[in-house]
Amino acid sequence: MKKLINAVDDVLSESLEGFAAAHADLVRISRSPTFVARAGTPTENKVALISGGGSGHEPLHAGFVGFGMLDAACPGQVFTSPTPDQMVAAAEAVDGGAGVLFIVKNYSGDVMNFEMAAEMLAGNHATVLINDDVAVEDSTYSSGRRGVAGTMIVEKMVGAAAEAGLDLATCQALGQRVNQATGSMGVALTSCTVPAAGKPTFELGGDEMEMGVGIHGEPGRRRVKLAPAAAIAEEMIGAICQSLQPERGEPVLLLVNGFGGTPLMELYLMYHAAAQQCGARGLEIARSLVGNYTTSLDMAGCSLTLTRLDDEMTRWWDAAVHAPALRWGR
Amino acid sequence: MKKLINAVDDVLSESLEGFAAAHADLVRISRSPTFVARAGTPTENKVALISGGGSGHEPLHAGFVGFGMLDAACPGQVFTSPTPDQMVAAAEAVDGGAGVLFIVKNYSGDVMNFEMAAEMLAGNHATVLINDDVAVEDSTYSSGRRGVAGTMIVEKMVGAAAEAGLDLATCQALGQRVNQATGSMGVALTSCTVPAAGKPTFELGGDEMEMGVGIHGEPGRRRVKLAPAAAIAEEMIGAICQSLQPERGEPVLLLVNGFGGTPLMELYLMYHAAAQQCGARGLEIARSLVGNYTTSLDMAGCSLTLTRLDDEMTRWWDAAVHAPALRWGR
Repeated sequence: MKKLINAVDDVLSESLEGFAAAHADLVRISRSPTFVARAGTPTENKVALISGGGSGHEPLHAGFVGFGMLDAACPGQVFTSPTPDQMVAAAEAVDGGAGVLFIVKNYSGDVMNFEMAAEMLAGNHATVLINDDVAVEDSTYSSGRRGVAGTMIVEKMVGAAAEAGLDLATCQALGQRVNQATGSMGVALTSCTVPAAGKPTFELGGDEMEMGVGIHGEPGRRRVKLAPAAAIAEEMIGAICQSLQPERGEPVLLLVNGFGGTPLMELYLMYHAAAQQCGARGLEIARSLVGNYTTSLDMAGCSLTLTRLDDEMTRWWDAAVHAPALRWGR
Repeated sequence: MKKLINAVDDVLSESLEGFAAAHADLVRISRSPTFVARAGTPTENKVALISGGGSGHEPLHAGFVGFGMLDAACPGQVFTSPTPDQMVAAAEAVDGGAGVLFIVKNYSGDVMNFEMAAEMLAGNHATVLINDDVAVEDSTYSSGRRGVAGTMIVEKMVGAAAEAGLDLATCQALGQRVNQATGSMGVALTSCTVPAAGKPTFELGGDEMEMGVGIHGEPGRRRVKLAPAAAIAEEMIGAICQSLQPERGEPVLLLVNGFGGTPLMELYLMYHAAAQQCGARGLEIARSLVGNYTTSLDMAGCSLTLTRLDDEMTRWWDAAVHAPALRWGR
């Protein structure tokens, strides 16, 4: 295992300390239980958005804590769900009186622990479950479709709505609507390596790729020979459109998300390939994002995500955001 | 070779097409000769900043074309200098009447071709040469120190000064001053793979790293056993401080730059390790940046950069910027 780390047991804590120090103007961390929250006091009468999940997907979720997006994030150990006490402490720290909305990726451990936290909470709360991965119906870690890179699109749009003062039920309904309108699919060229395991999660031949891979390196649709970017994009956009059924002429958001080990040069090339596939289907790419937003440690590969946009979603997407990993409009 | 590409010969052009389409609100591309420029017409009476170099270091340089930073970037093929006709065409396209400042990383090919371009230019022009890499005095591709991740710091600060209306000579002097105040050093855990070569540029054992590596995978100081992040940071910050000789209590900018194959989680861990080394030397980290800004294709590893800040540099760093890869203040 070749990683820039010290002791394996300290990877999460040292990375979080670095994150908090590098962004001290935006975030603060609680160390026991562990969560990341916006710097300063909670915004009064604003719905508080909280997400969380296993670490190893950075910048998801802590990188999205900030104005116009999340109020707090609860990081578990690498690829391990955070615990209910983290979520409860985060909720109590950031609830400004308008309630708490949990944004939860559909993995069995995350779902269970967020449910337990919800039961322990005295205040108003609601949950949006994210399941944008169109690759498989059930997987190693999930019952039903997995939640992957589309999560950050929900966090961005609902975060803007919460910042604008929408109430808890409206924010929840918006989150569910954005999730419904969003589909993703991933491909891995290499495995990731979990620090505590010390070796690759799975083995891929030198000429193979895993189509439909999950963000923990869990199996996808099939293991096939490495294909050109154009063919990969065709299969992924095809599968997403099969699920979302967008109409010709419809505006979409296209997110090309790197898994951590693939450089930007290839991500832009994949954007080009994906845009051609969208064009062939008569879709109008109205908004775009390219970069490493929902990673799988050091896995090489990427995912493509489409969201069918309406005017309201576009407005929430365009609204100002100021988080460590996403910033525009201020 | 496992990459998200189509034909090897099309990697640069397809990646650039994707880049231009994803950021059509900010940039436009010229295809023959190839350069990236800000969308719209040149700003009148503003010094135009132009950089360029081999591709494979994305987002450097094209990702920094935008308000408050570069006016144009000239990408060569992967790890290959752009040609003088690209630079001349870019200069003629973006010169708003106040002259052109070339920002050139110190590599023999880049230096020679930018010099040839300068000779061909009718208008006012000047050059800032970047040589921030403290690892080695001469290297495979350079006579004298190499220009690496510190380049984007010069581009940001001088870009802000040009946007504020400073003249060509003042912008050049500022660039030289920032370059003098900036030192970098890198470490590679794996080689990169140039698409046209199809195999790793160099071989590293499973337990080895290359200290002081250049951004093309060229040799650095020495090949040693993989060390903990803390020890790597100590050697790198030590070498940079030996070169820069910052005083105790002095404010610095700390940039932790990923080489393309290393995930954000490790970069923040390295930030933590580097910050401890700065603290031990009495340096105040006044500004920070963590991410993939000057990459080496898919190489795993990172570089650390320090800039000794004064009030003027800090003001230019904080000024608004709106480029595909860097945005704040608007």
